[in-house]
Amino acid sequence: MKEKTILKLKLNTDPRWVNIAGKNIEDILVDHAWCEQKAASTGISMIIHYPEKTRLVDELTDLVAEEWSHFERVLLELRKRGFQLGRPRRDDYVVQLLAHVRKGGARERQLMDQLLVSALIEARSCERFKLLWQHIADEELSKFYYELMVSEAAHFVSYVDLAKEYCDPVVVEERLQELLKIEGEIVTNLPVRDDRIH
Amino acid sequence: MKEKTILKLKLNTDPRWVNIAGKNIEDILVDHAWCEQKAASTGISMIIHYPEKTRLVDELTDLVAEEWSHFERVLLELRKRGFQLGRPRRDDYVVQLLAHVRKGGARERQLMDQLLVSALIEARSCERFKLLWQHIADEELSKFYYELMVSEAAHFVSYVDLAKEYCDPVVVEERLQELLKIEGEIVTNLPVRDDRIH
Repeated sequence: MKEKTILKLKLNTDPRWVNIAGKNIEDILVDHAWCEQKAASTGISMIIHYPEKTRLVDELTDLVAEEWSHFERVLLELRKRGFQLGRPRRDDYVVQLLAHVRKGGARERQLMDQLLVSALIEARSCERFKLLWQHIADEELSKFYYELMVSEAAHFVSYVDLAKEYCDPVVVEERLQELLKIEGEIVTNLPVRDDRIH
Repeated sequence: MKEKTILKLKLNTDPRWVNIAGKNIEDILVDHAWCEQKAASTGISMIIHYPEKTRLVDELTDLVAEEWSHFERVLLELRKRGFQLGRPRRDDYVVQLLAHVRKGGARERQLMDQLLVSALIEARSCERFKLLWQHIADEELSKFYYELMVSEAAHFVSYVDLAKEYCDPVVVEERLQELLKIEGEIVTNLPVRDDRIH
C-alpha cells in the first residue's frame, strides 16, 4: 500500500498481471526497453520546447541520461538471455493519457499537463516494477526491478515538483487529482496483457 | 592535415571561422548543445527503425549515451558562464546533407546513406572541434574540445564500420567518396558564421 500513498495512484494493478507478465519475460523486457526510450525521448522533447526554463532543462537533462542508462541495462538483460530487441509497439496506455494534455490556451497549462502526465507514467511504471520485483522468479531481474522502482519514484516526484515550479501549486494539485482519476479509469479499461509494462 | 587523412574530408574549414566563432562562445556553445541533442536523437531514431540489427543497436546505444553526456557537459559550460540554453536553430548543413539520403529502393541502401551521412557530420564536427581546441583562448574550453574531437573521430569510424557491416563494403566506400564530395560542396557554399558549429 505504501507506494499507493507516495505515488497517489487511484487503482492498484490487477494482480493477474504480474503472474502472466512474469512468465513472458522476453516480451516484457522488449516493451520495457521501449518505455525507457520513450521516457528519454519525451525528456529531450521537453528540453527542445522549453530551453529558457533553466531548472526544467537541468533536471530533465539528468533524467534523460538516467532513462537512457535504463534502456542500456534492459538491452543488456535481453542480450544475456539471447533475446532480440523486438519492434516498438503502440502503447495504448500512454496514447490515452497523452490525449488529456490540453493544447492551445496558456503555454504554462500545456507544460503542466505534459509534466503531470509524465509523472503519472513514471508512477505507474514504479508500481508495476514493484510487482515485478516482488513476484518474478528470476532473482537477478527481481533486484534490477527493485532499483528501477526506486528510480521511477524519484522521477514522479521530480515531474510534480517541476510542475509546481512553473505553475500555481494549488492548480497543479487539483489537476493532478483529476489526472489520477483519469489514469485509474484508463488502467481499468485496458486489457491485462502479458507483453506490456502498462 | 592528419585529421583530413583520417576523416577523409575533401575540404578544410575556412580559417576565418575559428577566429569569429572563438569570439562568440555563447552562441557556439548553444549551437553545439543542440548538435549533441540531434546526434543523440538520430541514434535513437536509428535504433527504433532497425531493432533487429544487433550490432547497430548495441553500438548506437553506447553512442547515444555518449552524445547525451556531451549535451550535459556543454550545458554545464553554458551554466558556468551564466548563459542560457538558447532555442534550437535550423541547421542548414545537416538539412542539406540529409537531402542526399536516398529513400525508397532497398532498405539497406537507405540505411547505408543514413549511416554515412551521420559519419560525415561526426567527421566535420571533429574537424571543427580541432580548430576550437587549437585556437580558442579559454584554456578549459580548449581542453574540452580536445576531448570531444577524439570522441567524434571514434564516432565517424563506428558509423562507417556499421555501414560496412550491413552493406557491401565496396559499395560503401564508393558512396562515401560521393558523399565526401557533396559534403565539401555544401561546406563551400554555406556562409562562414560565428554562431554555428557547422
